[in-house]
Amino acid sequence: MRDLNGRLDLCALNTATLGHRAPIEEVIEQVARHGFGGVCPWRRDLEGRDVAAVARQIRDAGLQVSGYCRSTYLPGSDAAAFQAALADNRRAIDQAAILGAACFVMVVGSLPPGSRDLPFARAQVAEGTARLCEHARAAKVRLALEPLHPMYANDRSCLNTIEQALDLADQIDPAPDGNPVLGVALDAYHIWWDPHLARDVQRAGRSERIFAYHVCDWLVPTRDLLTDRGMMGDGVVDLRALRREVEQAGYAGLVEVEIFSERDWWRRPPEEVLSACTSRLQACC
Amino acid sequence: MRDLNGRLDLCALNTATLGHRAPIEEVIEQVARHGFGGVCPWRRDLEGRDVAAVARQIRDAGLQVSGYCRSTYLPGSDAAAFQAALADNRRAIDQAAILGAACFVMVVGSLPPGSRDLPFARAQVAEGTARLCEHARAAKVRLALEPLHPMYANDRSCLNTIEQALDLADQIDPAPDGNPVLGVALDAYHIWWDPHLARDVQRAGRSERIFAYHVCDWLVPTRDLLTDRGMMGDGVVDLRALRREVEQAGYAGLVEVEIFSERDWWRRPPEEVLSACTSRLQACC
Repeated sequence: MRDLNGRLDLCALNTATLGHRAPIEEVIEQVARHGFGGVCPWRRDLEGRDVAAVARQIRDAGLQVSGYCRSTYLPGSDAAAFQAALADNRRAIDQAAILGAACFVMVVGSLPPGSRDLPFARAQVAEGTARLCEHARAAKVRLALEPLHPMYANDRSCLNTIEQALDLADQIDPAPDGNPVLGVALDAYHIWWDPHLARDVQRAGRSERIFAYHVCDWLVPTRDLLTDRGMMGDGVVDLRALRREVEQAGYAGLVEVEIFSERDWWRRPPEEVLSACTSRLQACC
Repeated sequence: MRDLNGRLDLCALNTATLGHRAPIEEVIEQVARHGFGGVCPWRRDLEGRDVAAVARQIRDAGLQVSGYCRSTYLPGSDAAAFQAALADNRRAIDQAAILGAACFVMVVGSLPPGSRDLPFARAQVAEGTARLCEHARAAKVRLALEPLHPMYANDRSCLNTIEQALDLADQIDPAPDGNPVLGVALDAYHIWWDPHLARDVQRAGRSERIFAYHVCDWLVPTRDLLTDRGMMGDGVVDLRALRREVEQAGYAGLVEVEIFSERDWWRRPPEEVLSACTSRLQACC
């Protein structure tokens, strides 16, 4: 297990952690100044911008791109919606290629409005992911399926366990000779409760499918299902034990902080948030 | 699959659905008057009461007791807390015997305050459940482990999937000749997202371990993690498909409504809540 003390170059900041309040150009400078090794931008950060210019600024700041967030939900109420989602995701994958992102993060979606058919949503996700895989392979972009906590099963993701994501990856992209294009993004918030955590992290490592590792913490109480994630150390997740599992399974990429916190961190000055992230990464992760 | 139309005798009401606002004696009368076949009381309903007298009133009203809610959390910060939880649960199991409850519902607990050690909490749950099983066997009370949604993994339950509960039951109470004392309570709210739902419901049925089936609905959006459950039909759970699975697996017990709804149903008159339950059980479940 790597020692993160004095090694912020092994860490990355997901821009959502700062609440998308400042332009990406400013965020890149702040993240670099605090010593991070990488940044993970969102598509909204790049709206109306020259992606190649942002990519250049990130490189010039000495930062890697630990990931690019995130996919448009795949399931749709009809074929047109499904096709539109695929087209939108292909454009995003092309941007991920320009950014040189370690992966394009796939939050796959779930039930379209009015639907109760979870098996059908899962079938659409399988089909859509297979289609996007072809595009991603050509674009040389890795797709990281992010299993989301089961409390998001209704809308954000019908992929809710590491096992489920790996089963899909094995089916779509067997990659017997290594270098799969389809892998997983492991986020502490989403996976910490999983009874098969150790088994499935190891499995993900064996097939070289761990493309990203995200940290934050599970607060007690959690007051909102979406935007009440905690700073590392403020909750109940054993983040050190989890990183040990992930790194023993072979992950050597960046440790990325991603915190959605409407009530707390998004209200604090960015400098304070970044300082807290850097100290907690070293003290708690 | 049974037809619930005109068959409210196949259905039960969990008293939490009414918000514990009225004394149990009154609730029993209301539930019977609306035509339900059973009731599931909570321990708080019986505080300071003669349990045998309440049991008699329930029987005289023509109601079954579909379950008795619920266990004291098993994991404790030290041995004394763990032993105290066991003693408290033994007393509750004795009450379940007096009530003639179909099962004692086990919400097993999780991390004691200050702990991040989920594997240790799970080990305590395994040990505590094994000890309680001996007591339950002697008292002729069945214990229904209720896997809780993973969003409760921090405090209410470190048992979060049907598979996990069945693995524990198989380990503690193999019951090769049938009639296990340890089984599961399947609650739509907790299990609807599970990628292995069909597989594990079938497994539970094969080993005759489905002791209870609870319904409510998953609202979109869900505004509170604990007390924002929906009336059947108001959310996204395919309740008819789920009951089909459960009954095809062999469950022939009551369909129990259990709704925690601080913002909505707990504020409405009990008569209105009971009417909604009876109509939705027939129309949506």
